[in-house]
Amino acid sequence: MTHGHFIALDGIDGSGKSSQIGLLVGWLQSRGHVVTTCRDPGSTAVGDAVRAILLDRHDLHLAPTAEMLLYMAARAQLVAEVIAPALARGEWVVSDRYLMANVVYQGYAGGLDPDDVRDVGRVATGGVVPDLVIVLDVDLETSARRLDRPLDKLETRGDGFRRRVREGYLAEAAREPEQACVIDATGGVDEVAARIRAAVATRFELSAT
Amino acid sequence: MTHGHFIALDGIDGSGKSSQIGLLVGWLQSRGHVVTTCRDPGSTAVGDAVRAILLDRHDLHLAPTAEMLLYMAARAQLVAEVIAPALARGEWVVSDRYLMANVVYQGYAGGLDPDDVRDVGRVATGGVVPDLVIVLDVDLETSARRLDRPLDKLETRGDGFRRRVREGYLAEAAREPEQACVIDATGGVDEVAARIRAAVATRFELSAT
Repeated sequence: MTHGHFIALDGIDGSGKSSQIGLLVGWLQSRGHVVTTCRDPGSTAVGDAVRAILLDRHDLHLAPTAEMLLYMAARAQLVAEVIAPALARGEWVVSDRYLMANVVYQGYAGGLDPDDVRDVGRVATGGVVPDLVIVLDVDLETSARRLDRPLDKLETRGDGFRRRVREGYLAEAAREPEQACVIDATGGVDEVAARIRAAVATRFELSAT
Repeated sequence: MTHGHFIALDGIDGSGKSSQIGLLVGWLQSRGHVVTTCRDPGSTAVGDAVRAILLDRHDLHLAPTAEMLLYMAARAQLVAEVIAPALARGEWVVSDRYLMANVVYQGYAGGLDPDDVRDVGRVATGGVVPDLVIVLDVDLETSARRLDRPLDKLETRGDGFRRRVREGYLAEAAREPEQACVIDATGGVDEVAARIRAAVATRFELSAT
């Protein structure tokens, strides 16, 4: 069975993730690679239905464990429907967030035991985990300034929460040094994009230009 | 902290579960107990939203793992919002299905590893498990005859599936002899109700009359 390459981009809201995903995908495509992109949660009909419960239904008061399990359900569907088939076709997959976001937001920052989140994640992903997780890191002031738009439920949780998220990403990345790479996401868009390309090139033994 | 009593009724569709829950709750109330009833999935706004994805959205093709995780999310919310508070108030809780249904339908009958379902269940329930699981057992012919109404997504999966469900319940009950009690649910409604009362009386040291 051929096997593609799986990259997740993750990091605190306001890290510039969305712009960087577009640039990374464009770069990979310009080198002739077939790239499937997705966002987690989302990118499937089931995931969109779950995403609506998670992020848009401000009337629902989700218990932390229920929230975590909804993310996991959306992820399991994403793996089955999008990621695993694309990898089996030998494509590149670039995902906007993945399991680490759950471990960080609901675990480190949200009060659940990170080990519990990882245990459920093992079942939810069926072992389909990224070859490389790029963690975009910025200070809280920069990320808050970049989030100059209406906020969703996660983003409105305040500074203490956002601080725990940032620290959680750094701790989790340090725990998975083979898989995760922390990228300094301060500075200009092109500058950060060059850092990401360098990390991808190193991990997959490509030339970075 | 006071602690109530937690009973789940479970079993293959068409086992007469719904009628028996009503009779059991009436009996407990007639003895002066405060009883909270719930159904899993459901009984919370979050659970109802998840239940709609699980059972009513025939357009969605749920991956088995995603389906299991959605049940777990609904259950986590049910524990946090309904079951744990009622038990803390010292009440009786009677639930229409609970974790065993997941282990059986998605595990034994649905092709997932039952150990994986139990692992996720440990996290989803936070250790809030029934003192007694009553498994209503009937042969497939009797249960099919009783299901003389429009079927939902689970119920339309055919006889091979239903056979694996029945066998799964019996296997899982045998695995948890301290917690589970298999009740023969063939025969008249009153006859089955008397068997259930006897099992509850034995487990909780009540008189059965």
